Amino acid sequence: MIQPVHVLSHVLHYENGSLMEVEDSIVTESPITIMLNQDEFATLVCSPEYIEELVIGFLASEGVISVYTDITDLFIDETTGHAYVQAKKANKYNQMFHSKRYVTSCCGKSRQSFYFYNDARTVKKVEAKGVSISSSDCFRFMQEMQQSAELFQYTGGVHNAALCDTNGIILSRMDIGRHNALDKLYGYCLQHSLPVEDKIMVFSGRISSEVLLKVAKIGCSIVLSKSAPTELALRLANELGITTVGFIRNQSFNVYTWPERIAEVERGESSGSK
Amino acid sequence: MIQPVHVLSHVLHYENGSLMEVEDSIVTESPITIMLNQDEFATLVCSPEYIEELVIGFLASEGVISVYTDITDLFIDETTGHAYVQAKKANKYNQMFHSKRYVTSCCGKSRQSFYFYNDARTVKKVEAKGVSISSSDCFRFMQEMQQSAELFQYTGGVHNAALCDTNGIILSRMDIGRHNALDKLYGYCLQHSLPVEDKIMVFSGRISSEVLLKVAKIGCSIVLSKSAPTELALRLANELGITTVGFIRNQSFNVYTWPERIAEVERGESSGSK
Repeated sequence: MIQPVHVLSHVLHYENGSLMEVEDSIVTESPITIMLNQDEFATLVCSPEYIEELVIGFLASEGVISVYTDITDLFIDETTGHAYVQAKKANKYNQMFHSKRYVTSCCGKSRQSFYFYNDARTVKKVEAKGVSISSSDCFRFMQEMQQSAELFQYTGGVHNAALCDTNGIILSRMDIGRHNALDKLYGYCLQHSLPVEDKIMVFSGRISSEVLLKVAKIGCSIVLSKSAPTELALRLANELGITTVGFIRNQSFNVYTWPERIAEVERGESSGSK
Repeated sequence: MIQPVHVLSHVLHYENGSLMEVEDSIVTESPITIMLNQDEFATLVCSPEYIEELVIGFLASEGVISVYTDITDLFIDETTGHAYVQAKKANKYNQMFHSKRYVTSCCGKSRQSFYFYNDARTVKKVEAKGVSISSSDCFRFMQEMQQSAELFQYTGGVHNAALCDTNGIILSRMDIGRHNALDKLYGYCLQHSLPVEDKIMVFSGRISSEVLLKVAKIGCSIVLSKSAPTELALRLANELGITTVGFIRNQSFNVYTWPERIAEVERGESSGSK
């Protein structure tokens, strides 16, 4: 049975040398098993909201579907935590290679950073030279996302992701799983045919290679995070043409890749850029 | 080619209205593909250190091996990021059901919280009634783990896990992946036949169901975290007999399950325990 996103529970709280019983909010997790054309495809453990978006986004991210209309039927059974998906055009090759290692036989420069077949097959270089962001918007979008997360009490370690345009946040999603928050956004974009080329992704957590690949698949050319990127994520961002901005905290941040999209760099105001 | 755990890189740093080039430490990620008896079994993306321990711990956690001697040969190819494992006793059933959903046909109380076959088959209830911990040791062990992490510069979002006995930390491991840090500890314990029944697990991140199950598989009866547990993790902890202590910060913490192992509760010093 699918639960609310958090529940109240009695816990023993220790403070000032004594233990007392208090009521506390505990975040929930639900397993969702995707049955794709009658076969078990994957089990995702997620925060139980926007599950339809999550399933659509995950299948697109795995390259099993390309567009929303590839899905002919989708039914979520909340009692057992199953998502039954019928997809006539499901890519059988990508189904077969789900989570299989992609090994290049040579040391050529192309796609050498990829490690899963489906990523190497589905990710394309982002082409959005026109999009740029000012330093003040980097701070503003991060602050807006954090405020919207607090508004919904989604605090205490869950991951938040938001899509922005130059006016601010359009859509935000949370999940206990970092990649799930991104897949929920992806699912929404596909379901509602939301154009993403001009959007900016704001993320609460670390930019790992997995997060960077999701951003590339969704199609955003700028990703903002209050945390750090990994070295593999930066190699992928360089290769895929994505601007990564990390450690957005107080009044400073770092630009790791493709700084051309930061307005101050465009105008040549950097005192040290290459 | 397996890299160091972090590398130095040039980044553009924005502060006080201007951008300047600085050198920064970037954490690395490496994909490790486990080839089990010639077949591709799984790809883990990890911090590239203690990979042998990680592979052993992961295979045990998946129920493919039970003891270290089940592995007859293990070779890590650092150039391609592959771990070649020969395991004569590899459990073919658990191999087959790797990440397959475990669905109970009834609503019986037993094992209803499990969602993966291999977890339901490998996790056993922890029996360690003799182990207890004082509130001051909860603070001390958390502080020791954080200090040891800082000592090795493993900061900036990586996960840390440590095994303690009543004297303090015995062993600690870090990883960009939360479960990898625990699998590295598990691998070490199996390789060195380290008894765990009397040990306490200290963890930097959220206690999700996955983390709780790893702790149960390793065999610890107490888990301490500076973050929050999920509701599903608490259901599993209740069922498996594990004491969970969360939100260890400043001078307070919460006890969520099996408070009998907290020394103050044992002595009846709680003003509100059940």
